[in-house]
Amino acid sequence: MNTYKRLDQDDLKNITAFINRDRILWDNEINEEYSHDELSAKQHYPDMVVRAVSTEEISKLMHYASENHIAVTPRGAGTGLVGASVAIEHGIMLDTTLMNHFIELDEQNLTLTVEPGVLLMELADYVEKHGYLYPPDPGEKSATIGGNISTNAGGMRAVKFGVTRDYVRGLEVVLADGTIMTLGGKVVKNSSGYDLKDMIIGSEGTLAIITKAVLKLLPLPKKSVSLLVPFPTLAEAIRAVPPIIKSKAVPTAIEFMEREVIMDAEEYLGRKFPDNQADAYLLLKFDGNSMEEIASYYDKVAQICLQQGAIDLLIADTDERAESIWKARGAFLEAIKSSTTMMDEVDVVVPRSLVHNFVEYIHQLQSEMQIRIKCFGHAGDGNLHAYILKDQLSDEQWDKILNLTMDKLYSKARSLNGNVSGEHGIGYAKKEYLRNSVSDKAVVLMQGIKKVFDPLDILNPHKVCQE
Amino acid sequence: MNTYKRLDQDDLKNITAFINRDRILWDNEINEEYSHDELSAKQHYPDMVVRAVSTEEISKLMHYASENHIAVTPRGAGTGLVGASVAIEHGIMLDTTLMNHFIELDEQNLTLTVEPGVLLMELADYVEKHGYLYPPDPGEKSATIGGNISTNAGGMRAVKFGVTRDYVRGLEVVLADGTIMTLGGKVVKNSSGYDLKDMIIGSEGTLAIITKAVLKLLPLPKKSVSLLVPFPTLAEAIRAVPPIIKSKAVPTAIEFMEREVIMDAEEYLGRKFPDNQADAYLLLKFDGNSMEEIASYYDKVAQICLQQGAIDLLIADTDERAESIWKARGAFLEAIKSSTTMMDEVDVVVPRSLVHNFVEYIHQLQSEMQIRIKCFGHAGDGNLHAYILKDQLSDEQWDKILNLTMDKLYSKARSLNGNVSGEHGIGYAKKEYLRNSVSDKAVVLMQGIKKVFDPLDILNPHKVCQE
Repeated sequence: MNTYKRLDQDDLKNITAFINRDRILWDNEINEEYSHDELSAKQHYPDMVVRAVSTEEISKLMHYASENHIAVTPRGAGTGLVGASVAIEHGIMLDTTLMNHFIELDEQNLTLTVEPGVLLMELADYVEKHGYLYPPDPGEKSATIGGNISTNAGGMRAVKFGVTRDYVRGLEVVLADGTIMTLGGKVVKNSSGYDLKDMIIGSEGTLAIITKAVLKLLPLPKKSVSLLVPFPTLAEAIRAVPPIIKSKAVPTAIEFMEREVIMDAEEYLGRKFPDNQADAYLLLKFDGNSMEEIASYYDKVAQICLQQGAIDLLIADTDERAESIWKARGAFLEAIKSSTTMMDEVDVVVPRSLVHNFVEYIHQLQSEMQIRIKCFGHAGDGNLHAYILKDQLSDEQWDKILNLTMDKLYSKARSLNGNVSGEHGIGYAKKEYLRNSVSDKAVVLMQGIKKVFDPLDILNPHKVCQE
Repeated sequence: MNTYKRLDQDDLKNITAFINRDRILWDNEINEEYSHDELSAKQHYPDMVVRAVSTEEISKLMHYASENHIAVTPRGAGTGLVGASVAIEHGIMLDTTLMNHFIELDEQNLTLTVEPGVLLMELADYVEKHGYLYPPDPGEKSATIGGNISTNAGGMRAVKFGVTRDYVRGLEVVLADGTIMTLGGKVVKNSSGYDLKDMIIGSEGTLAIITKAVLKLLPLPKKSVSLLVPFPTLAEAIRAVPPIIKSKAVPTAIEFMEREVIMDAEEYLGRKFPDNQADAYLLLKFDGNSMEEIASYYDKVAQICLQQGAIDLLIADTDERAESIWKARGAFLEAIKSSTTMMDEVDVVVPRSLVHNFVEYIHQLQSEMQIRIKCFGHAGDGNLHAYILKDQLSDEQWDKILNLTMDKLYSKARSLNGNVSGEHGIGYAKKEYLRNSVSDKAVVLMQGIKKVFDPLDILNPHKVCQE
């Protein structure tokens, strides 16, 4: 067992020599927020929080941490769901939210260079104002781009545009020993040695600290239309997705949602959803440069939905109508959370042709386990979010039922050739399930890679593949 | 220095126990082709060539090789340009070209599962027949998909669609010790531990042997138009590209070409290029689902080209006209090769806004070094192919001038924040230039990763980052 140095007054003094004291939180200056992420059951306080403002500061800090064998937990906005940004070994929490500058919009290369603390919503506003799109679109808009890169976040537009990984052209990172390294750049192609950049993306702060990112942008589509399609049952809604994909129409997003979750969102937001006639809905979005182009897609998709049993078709071609629907969609996580005492989640991804199997299994498991499971997600890319709710269960009952339910859900995902996480990551909470879903040899490779990048295991210990 | 076992009659006997003798080439059964790739100056014969037909065979072979410390060089069609598929340490050459089956077209998940020996041209035909597009489009259509994945091949459509990496959803690989491993799958998103799949992609057969690939497909665009634009000079042609990118039109491809190279292609193909009025050309392609959609793009681009000094605009909206142009483009490498006695290449990639700097430097270097350098490439994604020609130089002069020219070209690329290889890889020939272009620490990380995957260094030794 690796033991880490806990910080004392000497460390505070030493670190204050290269980091301004007013950007160091120490002892009771450390807010409760820093002891958990969005979903942690347990609190873990770091000994110190450092709010860095530059790559050089982070380099010095990592050098100090490696010399003194101090655990360092990088953290963006703390919106994660799997404990990746929780300081299990105390030590230093490295908060990058003050590094939130837009460094360069390069319109000749279609790249945007940013610091890691820029929030997703700020990024979206910035590029749209300049006529560009940064396609990854996770529900949590107050996450940082650094956090999004660290989990390879996906979001709703993955059906058409892919995930965060597909939009990171270059990174500047600081390694565990303080080395500053640039990976990739503004270049469109690269076959120059092993792909260290993609190894960092999705590594949840365990291999290096992201201090700068060069993102790929697309021209902003001029028009978009959303289509809300009510179905009698969720099974019918989800079964309509493979024929849509097969039809060669290319929706930007295909989300599924159930009445119960929509009702939670109505209550949470204090506003009505535009439709209430059905138990289940598909919500589709189409983008393009002209209404004719988009219409050719959604006409075809509308036909397919009706053939598959859709009750109605609601076209949201004004900003207001579309916003009221997508706002509800965006509030699902918070709405479900506020409907119960405690919850945990699975974020599995399965081949998109098999989403209905998984959803039917969830329904069956609810009765079998006598527990509420709320579910919504990305029907178009096979990534489901299922939330298991504690409600009035005792802590003891909850632990037992939760573990059993989790085991069953992940085991079902494996049987469908799915993976543990589509976009939330592994962090601390899903380590055991990752272990069960990949081979022992794959874990050995991951641990070997961890050791290459961070031989002292000081960067975000006990996460992803580490004991 | 690692020493490898050379194969003897006992090895032949042992390997024949699990590989059919008629798929083993031994001694003088080994064709000269297997001693080099498309551009090697020196011959290196393997002791044995194994033409594998299954993952299980490859697993057994790697197990045998690791037990006996035999070097193994994986090889597809041998069309590489940097020596990655050359058996420097003799040993076993593992030829995967007989593993050339289409395993599954999954239209609900838009994936195609193939064996590694499928040729790029076969793949293109197959998916187009079913109404799909596999976007990566390298010039060398007789390369295997396994080779393409191993170099992260790019090609002409990268401007719009990206590179091979972006279209590999899953891999089955055999590790150096014979372990069979599946990475990724049909899933669209994945945040389940470190990204081993992307580590294999572009690793040029040094980390694992690819035995199966799940590729992502797109619906085939219904229409396409090519635009050939003559310019008075290459500099003017290339300077038109950044304004095109900035205009938010999205061409599928933007290639540049010079009269001299076109003349080589005319001679090589024995047919005339459709235009001969200019010293330099841009060749653009636009794809879409209707002519209206495409016209809106190329009208804008045509205006920009004229503003930037284009002499004329030639629209190829029939298959015949387009084919005659793209056929010439496809023959450039062979045509240049046949115009000289020997050549070597650089495949640098620079930010696309800086391509003109690099091309101007090449022109200057030609006079400075008194050597012919032919150049063409992907103006839209910053990836240039420059060929340095030996012509009538003596071997001694050639070695000297080639080395000096190479040093200068790579040094220029570095100064433009470029990378050593956009799509051809590092292999054996570009190792030294990779070393000069990345930090020592990056090389240490790469070598560490190599050791994790292949601790005995038997897989394709002396390539990419290894001594």
